[in-house]
Amino acid sequence: MIELTLIGIGTGDPGHLTQAAVAAMNDADLILIPLKGAEKSDLAGLRRQLCDAVIAAPGPRIAEFLLPVRDAAAPDYRAGVEEWHDAIAAAWLAEIRAHLDGAGRVALLVWGDPSLYDSTLRIAERLGRVLPVATRVVPGITAIQALCAAHAIPLNEIGAPVTITTGRRLRAGGWPAGSDRLVVMLDGDCAFAGLDPDGVEIWWGAFLGMKEQILLAGPLAEAGPDILATRQAARARHGWIMDIYLLHRAPRQRVDPAA
Amino acid sequence: MIELTLIGIGTGDPGHLTQAAVAAMNDADLILIPLKGAEKSDLAGLRRQLCDAVIAAPGPRIAEFLLPVRDAAAPDYRAGVEEWHDAIAAAWLAEIRAHLDGAGRVALLVWGDPSLYDSTLRIAERLGRVLPVATRVVPGITAIQALCAAHAIPLNEIGAPVTITTGRRLRAGGWPAGSDRLVVMLDGDCAFAGLDPDGVEIWWGAFLGMKEQILLAGPLAEAGPDILATRQAARARHGWIMDIYLLHRAPRQRVDPAA
Ligand SMILES: C[S@@+](CC[C@H](N)C(=O)[O-])C[C@H]1O[C@@H](n2cnc3c(N)ncnc32)[C@H](O)[C@@H]1O
Ligand SMILES: C[S@@+](CC[C@H](N)C(=O)[O-])C[C@H]1O[C@@H](n2cnc3c(N)ncnc32)[C@H](O)[C@@H]1O
Repeated sequence: MIELTLIGIGTGDPGHLTQAAVAAMNDADLILIPLKGAEKSDLAGLRRQLCDAVIAAPGPRIAEFLLPVRDAAAPDYRAGVEEWHDAIAAAWLAEIRAHLDGAGRVALLVWGDPSLYDSTLRIAERLGRVLPVATRVVPGITAIQALCAAHAIPLNEIGAPVTITTGRRLRAGGWPAGSDRLVVMLDGDCAFAGLDPDGVEIWWGAFLGMKEQILLAGPLAEAGPDILATRQAARARHGWIMDIYLLHRAPRQRVDPAA
Repeated sequence: MIELTLIGIGTGDPGHLTQAAVAAMNDADLILIPLKGAEKSDLAGLRRQLCDAVIAAPGPRIAEFLLPVRDAAAPDYRAGVEEWHDAIAAAWLAEIRAHLDGAGRVALLVWGDPSLYDSTLRIAERLGRVLPVATRVVPGITAIQALCAAHAIPLNEIGAPVTITTGRRLRAGGWPAGSDRLVVMLDGDCAFAGLDPDGVEIWWGAFLGMKEQILLAGPLAEAGPDILATRQAARARHGWIMDIYLLHRAPRQRVDPAA
């Protein structure tokens, strides 16, 4: 039996690690660290640093593996993602077979929290189809908490809802019905620039929790162009960027259908 | 100058404490612990236990204070809340004046994360009107992460949005437009029971992270009545309850306005 622990590690600040995460890292027999994409060395390096900082000797075996690349040219997006997840599960399986003798505790260090826009849980399910696996999740600080903490702002207005969505959705569908407050993640393209900025405020953060952290906020009409320029420059400098933002729309923005 | 640190402590599991939270607790000169309501002794006790577990001697001064009670009979709900926040800020101020000489580091241990349905940031703003205050936030694990981790489920479907709302909103407005996935918090009244259960799934958790933790999940039609009964019994046994749930609606549930 493989005990698989998905450990949320927060979003770059070693201080985000919880005591439960530290314990789970120390209790593992094998920690799998994926190497991927443009942020490859930075993010894998960060995971290794976290391990070095909190694991007591001798500690678990740490295995880095090349994360399979998604076929962006796949005609069917969903099918492409499914195939990609299959390939990642196969890569985990190969590492587990190489380092463990059929049983043991395997840990994966998941960016932020494993529940939020992350496929590790879905890949674990696939692994479970070929191997007896018991999966456990250790929650972590998400980029949403990191954003709100860095700006020292509440996520929601008193008693009001908030919607978490993606850049792709915001670009395609505009401001979703139902919430005057939106968190936008996975936005490679500054979807906020396509919104009517009237009455909208934005709180933006890039590289949250990391030494490169950048924060900008203000009325969208003024802060928007600033964020576009800052983001482009930061991205050029680092070679990659991770950013997230919270939008608030003044209720008077809403069109009353009865009016 | 008062340095005020709002420290997210997670939702009951001492393992939720982050390394940054532990550091901030140790660095404080004064930790304020509110005593309130029915869960008074349990939750204040839990905060004291966290302090005992992670603070090295001699450690900060720990001051417990009676949290003012909100006037539920106030004719204007918003005004009632404003007055209540003023009263809490005044209680903090009294403690700060009693224990510190105009300057120092004050910490507040905030349940979950300070950004999520919590008024500590708003009260800090009030304190800032009468005293020079620099506020810093240390993010914490929210009840949402605790729920998803306990059930080992993702918060969102791949690339899809999720809305966080309250029991009051769900009861008053029904399933909000824009998301097929909903997190419901602050629901004293099981608002899920008022929904058409067809095609809806629920993942419910009470006392997450605590030794009393209870988890139930399934199609709403079957799990709903179970949750109602379990919740009522648990609440009677403990004298209070804290619960949260995630709802998922099958997309076929949506009525296509063009059809
Ligand atoms: C694939 S999702 C993973 C989210 C992660 N599981 C979490 O809990 O935050 C990646 C997105 O999270 C956000 N993100 C993650 N880490 C971030 C950071 N340090 N600074 C800014 N945004 C971040 C960005 O919106 C990015 O596109
Ligand atoms: C006033 S809000 C505070 C939320 C908190 N700041 C957080 O980050 O989770 C209280 C609500 O959070 C949820 N909650 C908090 N702790 C919980 C726990 N241990 N188990 C279940 N629900 C919890 C419940 O929905 C409760 O009504």
